[in-house]
Amino acid sequence: MSKHKVTFLPHNTEIEIESGETLIRAAMDAGVHINASCGGGGTCGKCRVIIEKGTVTGEVTGMLNQEDLDKGLRLACMSTISDDLVVRVPTESAMDASALNAQASPRKTAHIKKMDFNKLKEKGLFHAPVEKVYVELTPPSVGDNISDVTRLVTHLKMHCEENKLQLALPVIQKTPEVFREDDFKVTVTIARPVRDGNKSRIINIQSGDTSERNYAIAMDIGTTTIYGQLVDLITGEVLSQFGDFNAQISYGEDVISRIVYAEKEGGMERLRQVVMGTINKVLGKLFIRAKIDSEEISTITLAGNTTMTQLLLGVNPKYIRRAPYVPTSTLYPPLGAAGLGMNLPAHVIALVYPQVSSYVGGDIVAGVMGSGMYRSEKLTLYIDIGTNAEIVIGNKDWLACTACSAGPAFEGGGIKLGMRAANGAIEDFSIDPVTYEPMVMTIGNVPPKGICGSGLIIMVAAMFEAGVIDSRGTFNQALKTDRIRQTDDIWEYVVVWKDQTQIERDVVLTEPDIDNLIRAKGAVYSGCQTLLEEVGLGINDIEHIILAGGFGSYIDLEKAMTIGFLPETDGDKVTFIGNGSLMGAKMSSLTNRLRKDVGEVTNAMTNFELADTPSYMDHYIAALFLPHTDLNLFPRLKERMDARRALRK
Amino acid sequence: MSKHKVTFLPHNTEIEIESGETLIRAAMDAGVHINASCGGGGTCGKCRVIIEKGTVTGEVTGMLNQEDLDKGLRLACMSTISDDLVVRVPTESAMDASALNAQASPRKTAHIKKMDFNKLKEKGLFHAPVEKVYVELTPPSVGDNISDVTRLVTHLKMHCEENKLQLALPVIQKTPEVFREDDFKVTVTIARPVRDGNKSRIINIQSGDTSERNYAIAMDIGTTTIYGQLVDLITGEVLSQFGDFNAQISYGEDVISRIVYAEKEGGMERLRQVVMGTINKVLGKLFIRAKIDSEEISTITLAGNTTMTQLLLGVNPKYIRRAPYVPTSTLYPPLGAAGLGMNLPAHVIALVYPQVSSYVGGDIVAGVMGSGMYRSEKLTLYIDIGTNAEIVIGNKDWLACTACSAGPAFEGGGIKLGMRAANGAIEDFSIDPVTYEPMVMTIGNVPPKGICGSGLIIMVAAMFEAGVIDSRGTFNQALKTDRIRQTDDIWEYVVVWKDQTQIERDVVLTEPDIDNLIRAKGAVYSGCQTLLEEVGLGINDIEHIILAGGFGSYIDLEKAMTIGFLPETDGDKVTFIGNGSLMGAKMSSLTNRLRKDVGEVTNAMTNFELADTPSYMDHYIAALFLPHTDLNLFPRLKERMDARRALRK
Repeated sequence: MSKHKVTFLPHNTEIEIESGETLIRAAMDAGVHINASCGGGGTCGKCRVIIEKGTVTGEVTGMLNQEDLDKGLRLACMSTISDDLVVRVPTESAMDASALNAQASPRKTAHIKKMDFNKLKEKGLFHAPVEKVYVELTPPSVGDNISDVTRLVTHLKMHCEENKLQLALPVIQKTPEVFREDDFKVTVTIARPVRDGNKSRIINIQSGDTSERNYAIAMDIGTTTIYGQLVDLITGEVLSQFGDFNAQISYGEDVISRIVYAEKEGGMERLRQVVMGTINKVLGKLFIRAKIDSEEISTITLAGNTTMTQLLLGVNPKYIRRAPYVPTSTLYPPLGAAGLGMNLPAHVIALVYPQVSSYVGGDIVAGVMGSGMYRSEKLTLYIDIGTNAEIVIGNKDWLACTACSAGPAFEGGGIKLGMRAANGAIEDFSIDPVTYEPMVMTIGNVPPKGICGSGLIIMVAAMFEAGVIDSRGTFNQALKTDRIRQTDDIWEYVVVWKDQTQIERDVVLTEPDIDNLIRAKGAVYSGCQTLLEEVGLGINDIEHIILAGGFGSYIDLEKAMTIGFLPETDGDKVTFIGNGSLMGAKMSSLTNRLRKDVGEVTNAMTNFELADTPSYMDHYIAALFLPHTDLNLFPRLKERMDARRALRK
Repeated sequence: MSKHKVTFLPHNTEIEIESGETLIRAAMDAGVHINASCGGGGTCGKCRVIIEKGTVTGEVTGMLNQEDLDKGLRLACMSTISDDLVVRVPTESAMDASALNAQASPRKTAHIKKMDFNKLKEKGLFHAPVEKVYVELTPPSVGDNISDVTRLVTHLKMHCEENKLQLALPVIQKTPEVFREDDFKVTVTIARPVRDGNKSRIINIQSGDTSERNYAIAMDIGTTTIYGQLVDLITGEVLSQFGDFNAQISYGEDVISRIVYAEKEGGMERLRQVVMGTINKVLGKLFIRAKIDSEEISTITLAGNTTMTQLLLGVNPKYIRRAPYVPTSTLYPPLGAAGLGMNLPAHVIALVYPQVSSYVGGDIVAGVMGSGMYRSEKLTLYIDIGTNAEIVIGNKDWLACTACSAGPAFEGGGIKLGMRAANGAIEDFSIDPVTYEPMVMTIGNVPPKGICGSGLIIMVAAMFEAGVIDSRGTFNQALKTDRIRQTDDIWEYVVVWKDQTQIERDVVLTEPDIDNLIRAKGAVYSGCQTLLEEVGLGINDIEHIILAGGFGSYIDLEKAMTIGFLPETDGDKVTFIGNGSLMGAKMSSLTNRLRKDVGEVTNAMTNFELADTPSYMDHYIAALFLPHTDLNLFPRLKERMDARRALRK
């Protein structure tokens, strides 16, 4: 993908941006405010800019007349970048430049970490957990009529140095026919022991030479979504991936409501069947997309939180939600995937990621594994953000973890016009610090329907920095704008007027919405603080932040630090790994070295229950401000606020 | 049971016999011939004897008048012994005494070997394979909320020196409830590894202290019958046993016909379900009879021949009946009993005895284990007799084995009036060497219906020694008796006249019957000879004979040697172990030491295929005589025959 340079005037702000992006995205990313309220769909006509150099492509709407066009005027949201550009933002669209420069914090998402299979091999971290070996056996004769299985095992011992082999019954069952399909030429799938000295298991035999086709499934069993990947065990490549909503959603949005349902007569089995239905749907899609037959799968690795794992395995999660929050088991033995109800052949072994505690589950262990934080020298803070936030702090020498309930605000829950990250959700926002007019972008560039979690963070951060709200999240009622108003005794800011929305009502941000966000970010931040304190460290000691979870990828880091959701640090030090659970599951599908580490890492992860830690509540209350009662924890923000204050004077 | 001395006159033969036995049994066992043809039911009135000293109890039938009674006459078959006796056999009932003395060979069955659990313990051969441990765990609290399973494993590690523990999913699934039923007081069932260094498995947990109740099932899966025992793992006692016909019989009497059926569409699964039906019936009876709940069972050990084992486990036996006779596997991993279809709880592990070859199966390995021959210094011949005879020769240093097809003669098959050992079957027989009148005893002492295998051996031996048949099994047509006659060109001996039978026809023994028996015994004997020759030994090197199988218990050893079925040896050197397969299964249920040996013994058993050994046919042809073409192999018989010949002159 080629990149182009866009220079915004009069700000003289430059940004490198990918070809094909819209001009309004370029402005947003560059921190250049352009009034816009239709989400980027070309209907409000507010985002007029003048192309001074270069050309843009894209529709010319009825919002501009010929005179406008002759002047070089275009709608930023309808203009696609395919050239280096110099763009002037007219006064009517722009905010005060000096204020802009003080405030400008171009959107910065974390860089995305992906696994490099070759690097893994170079580092010596690759020990194939499942290998296929092709052998040509001598067919039996009158003088040599040992059993089929003995023939195979003896051959492998003599010619392949396989000394400790075990066969499961399903493999024995298929042996007689498979051996004779292609004159005793067979491919054997051997699952290696995680620990040296244990037995290798022959988990499958196939006739002929299929040694080049060896695949695994990695799967993240989330409360909301289930994601799978089909991985080539020889190249490390992901051949297909697919995600779907966990059908258990119909029985409750969060783990607690699932547990409550599981306690009903037949409820647990119902939930087990339902999640298995989704798993099988995902599996089916993975096979079709990769054009792989399920028979060629060797293993499936599953990672999920403690409740999802117990439900999946038919282990009653009842005591997870009752003090003192005891999970049933942290470790699970290798299981037969077919026996669990998966549409996989009998030979496939399911490896289930171990749990640390009732609220730090296999998904987090997988994330710690997949992110590699347990091998890092740096003091790392790992956060997986959802309705529950799991926090892990540590490095290669030690690991501590905890979980806190963030509530549903990050997923748009409890927010008056909150919604999931879907089409029409406001995901980006800026505010003119003079006129208090907004710049709004939605997912899909369609008229707004509501506000998603990442949009909410950006909105609150922008309003806070613009002085629209104070550190308690209260609106400055003195500002001269009709967007700040009181409805039914509640103060709110009108983000988009009714006629510009899809929903025929004003999209507003209310004080209770802000309060909910503050509680959510406060819970996470104070969780980090409390955990650090328990291990004798402070928030400033953190050298690296890893964000996991679907939500993390949309977070504007700088804004998240502005509201005190994340500790202030260099953007370079933040890594986003996306679905950490899936990443860990994939990685341990690929190498035994990691599978071996899993048990050790799980044991090394010391769990802290925030409920048992009295200081948590103190930290929490201190964190119920923007960004925090102690502004010294956020020195960069403090500097910006001081500068802004100076400017205003 | 008290014993009494019975002296028969005029022979002056004494025998010690148990109180309650009949006089005719005493005579039979003492080798005293008394004419009798009704099987011992008091209807023919032929077995008149005079009680000269002592008194007998029992019915006095209409066959004797007052005068007879006053003379002290009684029917031997109706007289029960409860006193020391002197009994005179009147001339009409007795045979010639001098001939008798030359011929007399009191019936001698092998002594029966039973397992002695305490001796096993004394010898250091007892390593409990499954133990129950009662533990009182500290209930979880706010400061101690590790998972239930971790709590248990940690406790066992710290207080019971259990270091390598593994749990199966079904145990994990029941953990939360079981732990909380009796305030974290639980009994854990731990299955020990057969080999040191491997992991112990927690296969069950129960609330409260159930450590005194720990049971196992041992089961022999025979082609014809299935026998089970329920064993107390603490005392070694058999609490119940039950046997039933294998319902697969409807699909064929022998293994070959079962394999043929299994090759039909759906046949294998059908046979699997059918045998599982019988197994579950046997299990049900075992539980009821022992008053044990299935939940208290820890393991089931199964032994069966190769075909029965493969059918049971759903492994196609197709290639067992096709040259070069390849079984699928010799070893099977520990399996979930419930998964196989057994009505046993999920925690029960099924251990399946390994196979040596297609025709030397787990039943024979179990017999070798159970009999202890693999620990003996003596060169031992182990024979399990059925339609197939399996032969093992060896001692603690080496073991060789083979199988030969004996045909169905020993089970009454292919014999004109042959029948299974059931009520009305002639099981004992003697013949007057002068009058050629028979003495017949039946199972159940009821009028005869036919001849069972053990009766057949005795009959042929007696006729051979009496000169009624020659060494080729041909009747001496010159003898003056109307019992030897020709019907439809076939020579036969009338054992019981029609009016004395239940079947309204004469019970006869024909020359083809004798021929079938000679072929059967010839196959077994020459099998032994060939196997010995393969290992460089001769039949006279054998120091100990072990007979296994239901049939073996009824064999009159001396008669079996007379016909050349068994090599001639002292009766003391012959041991009968009954169902060797069940015995082995039971013993390895009880001690891991034996389970450990099983694998080694199986590997040590060198299999010889008689079909591949050209000398087998030569040995077989030489054995198709009574007792053998080489009479020097049977020196005792030779001596008796010489003496008889001398007497006659």
